[in-house]
Amino acid sequence: MLQSQLFPKTRKEPPKEAESINHKLLVRAGFIDQLMAGSWTLLPLGWRVVNKINQVIREEMNAIGGQEVLMPLLHPKNIWNETGRWDKAKEVMYQFKDSRGREYALSFTHEEIVMDLLRKNIKSYTDLPVAVYHFSTKFRNEARARSGILRGREFLMKDLYSAHTTEKDFWKYYGEVRDAYSKIFTRLGFDFRITEAGGGVFTDNNTHEFQVLAEGGEDTIFCCKKCDWGVNQEIFDEKKAEKCPECGGEIIKAKAIEVGNIFPFGTWYSERMHVYYSDKDGGKKPVFFGSYGIGCTRVMGAWVEVSHDERGIVWNKAMSPFDAHLIELPGAKDAKSVYETLKKEGIEVLWDDRDVPAGEKFADADLIGIAVRLVVSEKTQDKVEWKGRSEEKSQLIELTEAVKKLT
Amino acid sequence: MLQSQLFPKTRKEPPKEAESINHKLLVRAGFIDQLMAGSWTLLPLGWRVVNKINQVIREEMNAIGGQEVLMPLLHPKNIWNETGRWDKAKEVMYQFKDSRGREYALSFTHEEIVMDLLRKNIKSYTDLPVAVYHFSTKFRNEARARSGILRGREFLMKDLYSAHTTEKDFWKYYGEVRDAYSKIFTRLGFDFRITEAGGGVFTDNNTHEFQVLAEGGEDTIFCCKKCDWGVNQEIFDEKKAEKCPECGGEIIKAKAIEVGNIFPFGTWYSERMHVYYSDKDGGKKPVFFGSYGIGCTRVMGAWVEVSHDERGIVWNKAMSPFDAHLIELPGAKDAKSVYETLKKEGIEVLWDDRDVPAGEKFADADLIGIAVRLVVSEKTQDKVEWKGRSEEKSQLIELTEAVKKLT
Repeated sequence: MLQSQLFPKTRKEPPKEAESINHKLLVRAGFIDQLMAGSWTLLPLGWRVVNKINQVIREEMNAIGGQEVLMPLLHPKNIWNETGRWDKAKEVMYQFKDSRGREYALSFTHEEIVMDLLRKNIKSYTDLPVAVYHFSTKFRNEARARSGILRGREFLMKDLYSAHTTEKDFWKYYGEVRDAYSKIFTRLGFDFRITEAGGGVFTDNNTHEFQVLAEGGEDTIFCCKKCDWGVNQEIFDEKKAEKCPECGGEIIKAKAIEVGNIFPFGTWYSERMHVYYSDKDGGKKPVFFGSYGIGCTRVMGAWVEVSHDERGIVWNKAMSPFDAHLIELPGAKDAKSVYETLKKEGIEVLWDDRDVPAGEKFADADLIGIAVRLVVSEKTQDKVEWKGRSEEKSQLIELTEAVKKLT
Repeated sequence: MLQSQLFPKTRKEPPKEAESINHKLLVRAGFIDQLMAGSWTLLPLGWRVVNKINQVIREEMNAIGGQEVLMPLLHPKNIWNETGRWDKAKEVMYQFKDSRGREYALSFTHEEIVMDLLRKNIKSYTDLPVAVYHFSTKFRNEARARSGILRGREFLMKDLYSAHTTEKDFWKYYGEVRDAYSKIFTRLGFDFRITEAGGGVFTDNNTHEFQVLAEGGEDTIFCCKKCDWGVNQEIFDEKKAEKCPECGGEIIKAKAIEVGNIFPFGTWYSERMHVYYSDKDGGKKPVFFGSYGIGCTRVMGAWVEVSHDERGIVWNKAMSPFDAHLIELPGAKDAKSVYETLKKEGIEVLWDDRDVPAGEKFADADLIGIAVRLVVSEKTQDKVEWKGRSEEKSQLIELTEAVKKLT
């Protein structure tokens, strides 16, 4: 698209109240805009990044048999009462009464909603296993929204839910999700650990978190310096590990951002909500249940925390809002035809067609951080000057070669 | 995908409380599931249809310069107070106070939110025009949710907002959106009218609605029998038309479903919310503003109302949840290779691989209503039996020809 039309313009200064890096850079570069504390509009650039993230997640969810749905955000009180979580999770849930006296909660997660869906649609063991997921808005009544887009009152999450006939089948699938999550965060380019943690208002079982190592993180984890073993500080004492139990390596203490979690629930939810199936002998049995979340908007913020320099954001290919940023300088032979050629090849290009000084164009390109910058100017003639955002040096190459590298 | 794994199974009976056709058929065929009155989960088949609809809308919005974003659903009271709509729209808005005493509304539309976004990011005439849109959840506190997915308390909408320097530029764009909407509903296959109507809690101006002619509709319109002119009953008296003002044709009274609307606001919102820009002479002027909605989930319901038979839903190519429904009958040579061939060509196929009687497979195929049915059986040998859902007769054709017709 044409940068002259991109909404909004970049900003020279970060918002006064901004403390975290993702808050400063994502606002300055025009990826997000704050409506109120903890509540953000995803602007065109930000929405593009989140869609890139979502598509990677979607592919890996489909690969393990996940079926995409969309569940409601407004939940009736009676459903949350069935598990006792209307009271147990009161602290984080927005709960209210409408003008007609009906009581609702806003979605902060969907276990009870999925259980209700399953009990209406599952009869026998032949209907299982089932795995459904959706990308949807979550609301959390945070006492203090902070850290930019990392901890909001409203955010986007992918949550997957699976139900199984046996504990064995459940744990097999739990392993598959764990592997799928590892693939997702590897494809997105993160340095992460899989840490054991407590279950909060979700379960008394221990759970697994996917933690991105980041100085700006709110969580503290203890993890192996060598392998991917880790444990959240909150349960570190109970684990009493002095050396890594997996490989004997040194354990280090690190700051991290939780980007995903996977929860084994056993039959706790299905027993309370009567989600039973008939087995081969006609006996009624509760389903084994798990849920698996990834904070899509938080993933975007986490990347900015770990991948930036003094000039701006450094996107990698997987998450970059556009494949290439085409910078047109005075005297360029035919920027339009370069733009059209790239587009025709299915390459997503932001073309800086603005009538502003070269310095401003380069500064904006570094701030926005698109993975590849292509400059056309008087001196490039029929070639383009290619520079990766994370590279120091540029190189003059044929347009056909640029196309090849970008596709 | 494999039908044996599709969640959930179809149902023989519609829900007892269901009155409208879309409610009965969409639930029986497994497209939607009711959480509570007016609140639906979009199941895998339903979510696929809505995504087809959304993609058509997205393409036409992008073609007129719309930039996709995602705006928050939880809105602070103070913003709605700036226009007086916190009180004016009290009837339809969910409004509540959180545990910390802060007052919020749930999104039933986004004019105030867009105005706030613009005033923070628009400075001069060079920043205009701007057109942003999003697909997001809307909440309406309906006294009585009814008509299946046509009138819910929570639903999915695409809303576009545009801001302009002059009234002339605004009306030019309003015309472009009107044309884009006509393209969208034409691509989706609807018989619709563009009717003049009142503005409800949005504006005192008259507005335009896109109305699908349907017996199950809640709206009554007066429209020309020959051309696309129409007017909503609510303002028909003020128009006092006896013959069509466009072509002199006969005016008929008809039931219809409103699937889209476009609203001209002038400077009403921008003056109240101080959304000003500097013109060429440095003078401060309010932006001209409009909003444009399409009820994505309602579009799905509207199609079912107008396109079904006694056996089930009849999807057209544009909205069909899958491109083809592959029915495997006993003795088929190699259903799997047919399935793989179609998939390799990028065709979306639902393969009925279940071990159930042929009659059950045909009944389910007709109920679900995928646009094209392909049967492979003992007698089809190397060919496939092609039947459009809306056609009476099938024909035996080569697989390569089926592929050609489907791509």
